[in-house]
Amino acid sequence: MRVAIVGTGLIGTSIALAVRERSWPVWLTDADPAAAKLAADLGAGELLPDFPAAVDVAVIAVPPDAVAATLAAAQARDLARCYTDVASVKQLPLARARKLGCDLASYVPGHPLAGREKHGPAAARADLFLGRTWALCPAAETSAQATETVTELVRACGAVPVRTEAAAHDRWVALISHAPHLVAAAMAARLADAQQEALDLAGQGLRDVTRIAAGDTDLWTQILSANAAPVAEVLAAVAGDLAEAARMLADGEDPEKSVEALLDRGRAGVARIPGKHGGAPREFAVVQVVIPDEPGALARLFDATGAAGVNIEDVRIEHSPGLPVGVAELSIRPAEAATLLAALEAGGWPVRR
Amino acid sequence: MRVAIVGTGLIGTSIALAVRERSWPVWLTDADPAAAKLAADLGAGELLPDFPAAVDVAVIAVPPDAVAATLAAAQARDLARCYTDVASVKQLPLARARKLGCDLASYVPGHPLAGREKHGPAAARADLFLGRTWALCPAAETSAQATETVTELVRACGAVPVRTEAAAHDRWVALISHAPHLVAAAMAARLADAQQEALDLAGQGLRDVTRIAAGDTDLWTQILSANAAPVAEVLAAVAGDLAEAARMLADGEDPEKSVEALLDRGRAGVARIPGKHGGAPREFAVVQVVIPDEPGALARLFDATGAAGVNIEDVRIEHSPGLPVGVAELSIRPAEAATLLAALEAGGWPVRR
Repeated sequence: MRVAIVGTGLIGTSIALAVRERSWPVWLTDADPAAAKLAADLGAGELLPDFPAAVDVAVIAVPPDAVAATLAAAQARDLARCYTDVASVKQLPLARARKLGCDLASYVPGHPLAGREKHGPAAARADLFLGRTWALCPAAETSAQATETVTELVRACGAVPVRTEAAAHDRWVALISHAPHLVAAAMAARLADAQQEALDLAGQGLRDVTRIAAGDTDLWTQILSANAAPVAEVLAAVAGDLAEAARMLADGEDPEKSVEALLDRGRAGVARIPGKHGGAPREFAVVQVVIPDEPGALARLFDATGAAGVNIEDVRIEHSPGLPVGVAELSIRPAEAATLLAALEAGGWPVRR
Repeated sequence: MRVAIVGTGLIGTSIALAVRERSWPVWLTDADPAAAKLAADLGAGELLPDFPAAVDVAVIAVPPDAVAATLAAAQARDLARCYTDVASVKQLPLARARKLGCDLASYVPGHPLAGREKHGPAAARADLFLGRTWALCPAAETSAQATETVTELVRACGAVPVRTEAAAHDRWVALISHAPHLVAAAMAARLADAQQEALDLAGQGLRDVTRIAAGDTDLWTQILSANAAPVAEVLAAVAGDLAEAARMLADGEDPEKSVEALLDRGRAGVARIPGKHGGAPREFAVVQVVIPDEPGALARLFDATGAAGVNIEDVRIEHSPGLPVGVAELSIRPAEAATLLAALEAGGWPVRR
């Protein structure tokens, strides 16, 4: 399959790198020629002026406000047999494309649910979409063949295509992506003028709650404005719960009851979020092994796991500089846990499940 | 140093495991004998009835509301030469201990900034405090010798002691721990009744924002109620910002300006949070290596890094089931990046910095 990437930012370049790993030919272009050049230097593909004829699929990887005009321009020059975009909102680009008279039969609105706090081609990763969901929202006019081609592109990136309708998509991402972004920003905003001593106490919890607030302001302003009504609804509810909790705590009037109910609802909500690979949370067993902090220690550990025939699905290492040991947390299939524990214990590794 | 742990939950048992790794003798007790027994079975120490004489330090690792009474009971039986606690608030236990007539000269109020979403002795980890800050808030009456002993205990757990005053501590943790917990809960609460299709689209961002909301409701209700005024102040400000953002978005009146300013303040706040080991964020260089998803692949990779003399500080593996390869992200000291890249490339590993 031959692919054109229009917009070589984080997402466009990552798509290019992902399909390049399957040796698909890719052509690149960007409003900023330096960005396209950098993507090409990274091995993401050839610069677009060199492309020979219409490609199979063009990915319009530009900010939401620019999708429709960029699509119209690409179609005017017959860039591809079919088109998709990657904007985090789907009703706005579709409505504007319709208004501009774009050919909707060849356009499959799309949205990969993946990203990073960094942006630009240098932050791109071939594995950005592995195991992530990727929404596809074909319009009534979209041809089955176009949808099929774009679905194949999504699978080639290692993502899981999810078919839905643009309005439902926008409501859903307001809840699971757009509102959480502003909630993280509002919490992080409290830190902007905080005392350094307070920040020095910060733990992993604060880092996790606020991480996504480091995202690009211009892009997120576009996204939030383009999905204003559903985002506002979620935010108003969150703000209401927090204001009520603040009032009850400040008044000292039965604060436990109010806060307790909100904490319980929060626990129930967290429990419903699927795990990293789409399945139930915690599908792997975790085995902890104490390891010396020196070159070769991990190699010896993984020699031992390899000799036991056990495949490590994930590894985390907890280690504080200055201490002579760390702890390697090995995630494995639960059925293999007993085998691994026995093998490591036999090899003298300090191990704990 | 001889240690007594009063309360063998997550924190108490983790402290026991941490000091056991230095072969310090530990005695354990809990209001729930089964919890103390489980901790002892995990190797955290001996059950308390067997202890021979007053120990050097007793850790009162019970919920905030129970600290003062537990301290009074421990002092009444001369359990230890000095005492500390681990509650997330510091003014309340200190005030109650003073009211109960506890000996404050031997009491060093403390708070390790570490935790997990799981609780109970089975969730305990010897490495829970590695590299974390641990606040110590000696009162005016606290003896220098008691503070010195407890500081030694904190260092033995691999944590970084931070001396401060109880009122300041409570204000600071309201901002960096208690309010973020309720903000995460309020966002997560929106998911409790959400459509499954929306949750199926959830990405890493939502998981991070809401992770800490899975914590124990009873414990957090106590913490929040005991630090009500400073928490309420932060929450009211967050709620105000979110309500204003919701109103501007819903009205469509110049929404970009309001949302943009909040996003910018959020970015500024995130940038001020110190990294995992207390230094500047991203102190390590990251090298990405594509690896086949099979037993032994990681061993070969770490053989190669060990042979290059490079120490791996952390590893993350990105891998989607069904794909034949994954990506190992190796965190290393920046000065060693060039050495590692050259060695891996020479060995034929597909590598990217």
